[in-house]
Amino acid sequence: MSAESTLVLLRHGESEWNAKNLFTGWVDVALSEKGRDEAVRGGTLMAEAGVLPDVLHTSVLRRAIATAQLALDECERHWIPVRRSWRLNERHYGALQGKDKKATLEEFGEEQFMLWRRSYSEPPPPLDDSSEFSQVSDPRYAALPDEVRPRTECLADVVDRMLPYWYDAVVPDLRAGNVVCIAAHGNSLRALVKHLDGMSEEAVVGLNIPTGIPLVYRLDGDMRPVTRGGEYLDPEAAKDAIAAVANQGR
Amino acid sequence: MSAESTLVLLRHGESEWNAKNLFTGWVDVALSEKGRDEAVRGGTLMAEAGVLPDVLHTSVLRRAIATAQLALDECERHWIPVRRSWRLNERHYGALQGKDKKATLEEFGEEQFMLWRRSYSEPPPPLDDSSEFSQVSDPRYAALPDEVRPRTECLADVVDRMLPYWYDAVVPDLRAGNVVCIAAHGNSLRALVKHLDGMSEEAVVGLNIPTGIPLVYRLDGDMRPVTRGGEYLDPEAAKDAIAAVANQGR
Repeated sequence: MSAESTLVLLRHGESEWNAKNLFTGWVDVALSEKGRDEAVRGGTLMAEAGVLPDVLHTSVLRRAIATAQLALDECERHWIPVRRSWRLNERHYGALQGKDKKATLEEFGEEQFMLWRRSYSEPPPPLDDSSEFSQVSDPRYAALPDEVRPRTECLADVVDRMLPYWYDAVVPDLRAGNVVCIAAHGNSLRALVKHLDGMSEEAVVGLNIPTGIPLVYRLDGDMRPVTRGGEYLDPEAAKDAIAAVANQGR
Repeated sequence: MSAESTLVLLRHGESEWNAKNLFTGWVDVALSEKGRDEAVRGGTLMAEAGVLPDVLHTSVLRRAIATAQLALDECERHWIPVRRSWRLNERHYGALQGKDKKATLEEFGEEQFMLWRRSYSEPPPPLDDSSEFSQVSDPRYAALPDEVRPRTECLADVVDRMLPYWYDAVVPDLRAGNVVCIAAHGNSLRALVKHLDGMSEEAVVGLNIPTGIPLVYRLDGDMRPVTRGGEYLDPEAAKDAIAAVANQGR
């Protein structure tokens, strides 16, 4: 159990709703043209670094699925096994789903806005099942008992529902010696990085993960990072993007 | 074991080498623009018919993988579980891989050409491992013992290596009540249809499966078709396409 494992985290690129500055959450929005370009670039970075995934894990949302397809196609790994889970989905944004971020900021004020966006344990109001942005009748979640299907989530909820997938589905693939790629979302990846790096609830609030730039973790036999924070395959671009994400919605 | 199961067979659309009339086999060629359109149309047909896959099986070749992605994206099933296997690959065309079909016909004559293309048990000469069209050093097959990796195949060989996957991977998904989609190739699907419909070695020689038109089989508890030959979701287009495929290479 002492061999190092390699994990590649890939946050999806710009979606059509990112471009429009809307809260998305579990709404299944497609990548924008820019987002598709970001994904291809992610694949180029993996190919150049020789970090070639053997197994792919994605959420069940098309912006993560398409990001992985485009990136893996680019680095000639389109043929690897794929596993998908709702546990890798973006945070459910509750009643904010479909709402304009700027308008929400103006309506509720900076304090409440930042609390919903970034506090660890404060979920937005739940989304009504009758909303056009609800997933209660989405066939991809039909097999889930109703009590597991969120109507809103805070980051703590995402950690709770993501970690079982990490332990039960991802870690076994890493233990088997595979380079594992997880293509997912801002908050499901923040939840995972919080766990990996042993971040406090306070510290994770300030964590931003840029889109489309593969973040590589070498993990030890306890599935802990050899280097805290991992390593972006394009560190300069990551630095710039992190600054930009932090200012999103302003 | 008496409930009916639903199986959807989807042959990939035109690839860049189909368009150039080259033998492809295990060479990993991308879809052409026309092939991408065919795949999307396949997804539209599934959506219109309400035949919505719960599980996807593909080969490890990008023309089948991309066909499935485009079709499933179109019918909103991009999120379903995916399994891939080399056992669903196209027939390995041996030394013919990369060769022009028309030139091969002229060089070897109609009899030999049709024997290689369509006889049940006559493989083309094996492909040399040093060929640029060989897959001996392809990482996607690296885990396979060398004796399993073909250098050429006849249709009988495809039946032999495809059937274990049918029994061990596809049938359990059908037994679990899933609508199963197999996105694959002319010859791996001919091999499966031969098995399902109980066709003779002579009869399968005349079998053509059109590209991009989902072929739906309802299967009984013994995993045998309720209706021999299944049902194309666009029967008129299938009829026209079958005639066209039969004349390919002429």
